[in-house]
Amino acid sequence: MRSNFISDNAAAMAPEALEALVRANTGFAKSYGADEVTARAADEVRKRFDADAEVRFVFNGTAANAIALGMLARPFEAVLAYDEAHIRTDESGAPGLFGHGVGLIGLPGLSGKIDEAALEARLAEDEVGYRQPPAALSLTQATEYGAVYTVDELRRLIEPAKARGLKVHLDGARLANAAAAGFDLLEVPRLGVDVCVLGGAKAGGLCVEALVMFDHALAKRVDNRLKQSGQLASKARFLAAPLLGLLETGAWEGHAAHANLMAQRLAAAQPFPVTHPVEANMVFLAMDDAQLACVNAAGWSCYRFDDGSVRFVCSWQTTEGAVDELADALRAAA
Amino acid sequence: MRSNFISDNAAAMAPEALEALVRANTGFAKSYGADEVTARAADEVRKRFDADAEVRFVFNGTAANAIALGMLARPFEAVLAYDEAHIRTDESGAPGLFGHGVGLIGLPGLSGKIDEAALEARLAEDEVGYRQPPAALSLTQATEYGAVYTVDELRRLIEPAKARGLKVHLDGARLANAAAAGFDLLEVPRLGVDVCVLGGAKAGGLCVEALVMFDHALAKRVDNRLKQSGQLASKARFLAAPLLGLLETGAWEGHAAHANLMAQRLAAAQPFPVTHPVEANMVFLAMDDAQLACVNAAGWSCYRFDDGSVRFVCSWQTTEGAVDELADALRAAA
Amino acid sequence: MRSNFISDNAAAMAPEALEALVRANTGFAKSYGADEVTARAADEVRKRFDADAEVRFVFNGTAANAIALGMLARPFEAVLAYDEAHIRTDESGAPGLFGHGVGLIGLPGLSGKIDEAALEARLAEDEVGYRQPPAALSLTQATEYGAVYTVDELRRLIEPAKARGLKVHLDGARLANAAAAGFDLLEVPRLGVDVCVLGGAKAGGLCVEALVMFDHALAKRVDNRLKQSGQLASKARFLAAPLLGLLETGAWEGHAAHANLMAQRLAAAQPFPVTHPVEANMVFLAMDDAQLACVNAAGWSCYRFDDGSVRFVCSWQTTEGAVDELADALRAAA
Amino acid sequence: MRSNFISDNAAAMAPEALEALVRANTGFAKSYGADEVTARAADEVRKRFDADAEVRFVFNGTAANAIALGMLARPFEAVLAYDEAHIRTDESGAPGLFGHGVGLIGLPGLSGKIDEAALEARLAEDEVGYRQPPAALSLTQATEYGAVYTVDELRRLIEPAKARGLKVHLDGARLANAAAAGFDLLEVPRLGVDVCVLGGAKAGGLCVEALVMFDHALAKRVDNRLKQSGQLASKARFLAAPLLGLLETGAWEGHAAHANLMAQRLAAAQPFPVTHPVEANMVFLAMDDAQLACVNAAGWSCYRFDDGSVRFVCSWQTTEGAVDELADALRAAA
Repeated sequence: MRSNFISDNAAAMAPEALEALVRANTGFAKSYGADEVTARAADEVRKRFDADAEVRFVFNGTAANAIALGMLARPFEAVLAYDEAHIRTDESGAPGLFGHGVGLIGLPGLSGKIDEAALEARLAEDEVGYRQPPAALSLTQATEYGAVYTVDELRRLIEPAKARGLKVHLDGARLANAAAAGFDLLEVPRLGVDVCVLGGAKAGGLCVEALVMFDHALAKRVDNRLKQSGQLASKARFLAAPLLGLLETGAWEGHAAHANLMAQRLAAAQPFPVTHPVEANMVFLAMDDAQLACVNAAGWSCYRFDDGSVRFVCSWQTTEGAVDELADALRAAA
Repeated sequence: MRSNFISDNAAAMAPEALEALVRANTGFAKSYGADEVTARAADEVRKRFDADAEVRFVFNGTAANAIALGMLARPFEAVLAYDEAHIRTDESGAPGLFGHGVGLIGLPGLSGKIDEAALEARLAEDEVGYRQPPAALSLTQATEYGAVYTVDELRRLIEPAKARGLKVHLDGARLANAAAAGFDLLEVPRLGVDVCVLGGAKAGGLCVEALVMFDHALAKRVDNRLKQSGQLASKARFLAAPLLGLLETGAWEGHAAHANLMAQRLAAAQPFPVTHPVEANMVFLAMDDAQLACVNAAGWSCYRFDDGSVRFVCSWQTTEGAVDELADALRAAA
Repeated sequence: MRSNFISDNAAAMAPEALEALVRANTGFAKSYGADEVTARAADEVRKRFDADAEVRFVFNGTAANAIALGMLARPFEAVLAYDEAHIRTDESGAPGLFGHGVGLIGLPGLSGKIDEAALEARLAEDEVGYRQPPAALSLTQATEYGAVYTVDELRRLIEPAKARGLKVHLDGARLANAAAAGFDLLEVPRLGVDVCVLGGAKAGGLCVEALVMFDHALAKRVDNRLKQSGQLASKARFLAAPLLGLLETGAWEGHAAHANLMAQRLAAAQPFPVTHPVEANMVFLAMDDAQLACVNAAGWSCYRFDDGSVRFVCSWQTTEGAVDELADALRAAA
Repeated sequence: MRSNFISDNAAAMAPEALEALVRANTGFAKSYGADEVTARAADEVRKRFDADAEVRFVFNGTAANAIALGMLARPFEAVLAYDEAHIRTDESGAPGLFGHGVGLIGLPGLSGKIDEAALEARLAEDEVGYRQPPAALSLTQATEYGAVYTVDELRRLIEPAKARGLKVHLDGARLANAAAAGFDLLEVPRLGVDVCVLGGAKAGGLCVEALVMFDHALAKRVDNRLKQSGQLASKARFLAAPLLGLLETGAWEGHAAHANLMAQRLAAAQPFPVTHPVEANMVFLAMDDAQLACVNAAGWSCYRFDDGSVRFVCSWQTTEGAVDELADALRAAA
């Protein structure tokens, strides 16, 4: 079966990532992140936010997000997140491990965006000793359902949370797609985000995400934290290099723009009802089991998501030809 | 300062590793280890041991070893290990995190090898409810001090441990160097090792170690364990590929043999007392602070190890020329 | 405000508990559970189940249940429980701490009883590496909503779970009330429960619950587990004595029968709709905010539960007079 | 065998403790520490230190100390403690559980007192990312070897630690004995201790220790922390009452003075070399295996401690007669 659309992590490294990796492979270098490639990649990340942030590179979003939550909430506290946020559903309990039992409280909403009223209602609840009180708010941009929060929408969630003393985490596994969709990354620190995870893998890199700590106090002894968490790379230059390649060439945004465009093209060319706004690189379609089986039978690997829709994800590597082939198969299945 | 000898993780990827990585970078592939590159790498690992083991690839030894210990001992139990074993001294508490507070009991010995009598004495101690009883024995091959256990030495440690019901872990961050020094990997499962970590990074790979579970029961739901631990690679083919390149070409052993040879050359060409047997790729020298400062001043990055010796590590990338330059500097400092 | 009905833990120790405690307070005794009082209390517990179980006494249900779950599911696995089970809602994350991030998957049902079809549907789901798969089923008897499972109802939940290899935990904080309501404790081991928590505090004891392990393998090194968990009492005789007093006199069941009767009396004497079956010692009433305020204003401490009902709990110490007074207040508020 | 001298937790509750417990057993009371008995006990504790501290009561020192360490050091940080401090040797890993893998770094010294030079040397070490850096200093008063720190001795340890930004924990399982030996409790907050555990069980209480937080910031959401840790008592009045009884009558110090006196009497009346200063309620004697066997054969339960000495502990319940009987047995064994 063809894995083209099953996830953006089914794609290979983009050329800019691979080239930077190959370029980094010369001679000896200091390990554990003291090398020059890592320093340059961190600079590139800071440039995106125009902020004096502490930046570290880790192997994946599972660790990056779980470790971030462990910075923002203690084990007997909780994190507020969308009901079907990746950290709640798809990490096999990583936040619980790295957060030592930290609670994850789900909030409803549409297309991955937390409902403002639901957040405010939860924030207004009294604290009691026998329930983990919320200490942080976790947001995903672009959302797990391919929507992109506007700056105003984010502000209306972050402001009441910060007013209550909560810290804010932004899961940016697909932050490149959000940026390509017009979301201004400079707003991230301005909005009061404390820790942001900037995605590399889904953007065409190798296994890497940047952990961006705008609040320097959170970064105290972060290397010890990462080492204990199995996320301090010895040959760190190779972790940073592919992301550096994407960032310094602008391919990080460029490829994401292409992926977003392919999602638009797919959504437009196929017959099923689209169940979520196509604002980033994903298309969710309503189909029944027979139709899904038909698409699978045509050779396309895809599956039902938590909301019942069938998800298709585009990446830097998605071609117009593949989109058109898939659209044909979808039309045949409809 | 030149990082050539500070650690084997200061070296770049070996050509065989990089070539395999580049080769793996084509088209789409299943993620999370369901790809063909990962399958082939696992086969290569199994071939080394001629054993039907479960094999997974993780990002580093910190995680590989800590997760292995978490398989073998529960949080209220302990692991026996050499006093200065890497898991006890240099992981910023990773075994405690992944093992949820598991105890690490140190045992004395020479050059990283656990003393047999000390082990037997510890095994003979009565269990009490207020101390974590040993549930596993951890061994390192080659040791942190560059020595290589003989099969008989390992047997004399493993047999009494297994007779008491302990499980056995082998930290093989430098297993390639041990193999190149004549240690027969086929003995690993025969000796009763339950989980072995086969090193990739120090052998010329990228950030990768193989977690080899000879006891299949330990592998139950290991993917959930790895996912929760932030060690399940999404683009898994790129984690496996460099190690595959080393293993299928034999470069894994070949480069290690070269590194061992360079260590011999260095030991022979310099004037300081050698404090541990040079059986793998490391040379430990006795020198005073002025002499160490002199070596550093000559541009060589090196530092005192836990036993007070100064450590020099060779790798696949170490050249005869560099060894000779360093030996010159050492002679000048003596 | 009068705390009579706010919880069964607002009551004092029953006379039989206090007398046994006073009796135990003579001379020196072995600590950490090696004393004779502890041994006799464990025998009394085993007698209830007519089973050769391992029994330990801990300080509360929070610990007893969380530790039990940690025996039955590993950190990367999950426990199935009623949506509003106490372990999911009211322990401030204790299962996550003692289970190191173990997952808790909610299942729907009525009045605290898990819906059979919902359980079967969940058990039929495929395991995936990125979600914690269920390894145990947790049941509460009597339920958090005062209902009592019949043996057949339990069997229809336990059998499919065990058929899938899950272990079974029974939270018996109010097991005495269930027993007094006719539930035959001898069925607990026959049904295949692996670990049962037999409640002491709510039954008129001090802070104590019995951890009953029918599967002896689960009890391996349980004293180390309890010690690490801060649940191994030094002066253990005083932990066991009050429960011993209740059990050996039959007051454990007798007081529960009284509490159940008081709940029946309360339900019958008041005017609000009863929202859950009154099978144990609790009455849940539907009332609006003004009515609740009125009851509070009349001096009765009570509050809304998770389902929106207002809860009233009877205990060994509840008198007919108090029930009648409360019923008067409820009638006045209606 | 007679348990009189094996530990101070082999003694019963002192009369003042039991009487207070019986007195507290009337009517209904608010649970989880909101009752009046708990409030009064906390006041009595604060009075001892003349400090506006947050006070909570937990079930034992295992939990109290481990939770305190979890307040002062994060999982990837470490705590400095005496090599054979109880938290390092006798808690079956509790600090690792409640501290999620926090490190415990041992420091040498005599009779349980940390050596000043050793502390200063450790504090002077450079931090590195791969080793847990010290974030707290843990001291025990009276020490595990029955010595009592002077205020000056404590100051010379605490000052350099605080100067480096470390927090300070004081394990006071036998703080009553230290106080009875002349240690001024008012100095505890003045010295800069952040969290002190004031012992109840060994002082003649039930299973209870007071967790005293002089730094209020550490107490933020401490009830959630305790609830998650299984240390929030439902029937809290009974946890606090025995300690209240001891404190408000002065029996807490009075009984400790008696126990200390009995230790003096024992030390003076027996023939073996005393291996540690007898400043609190313990006597450590040097004897060989045959002599120890002889004492055991005479019916006295005692055992070798970590330093090889045989330990005898006196309590409120120790009589002159029992001391003299034991002294006879010791003379016979010599």
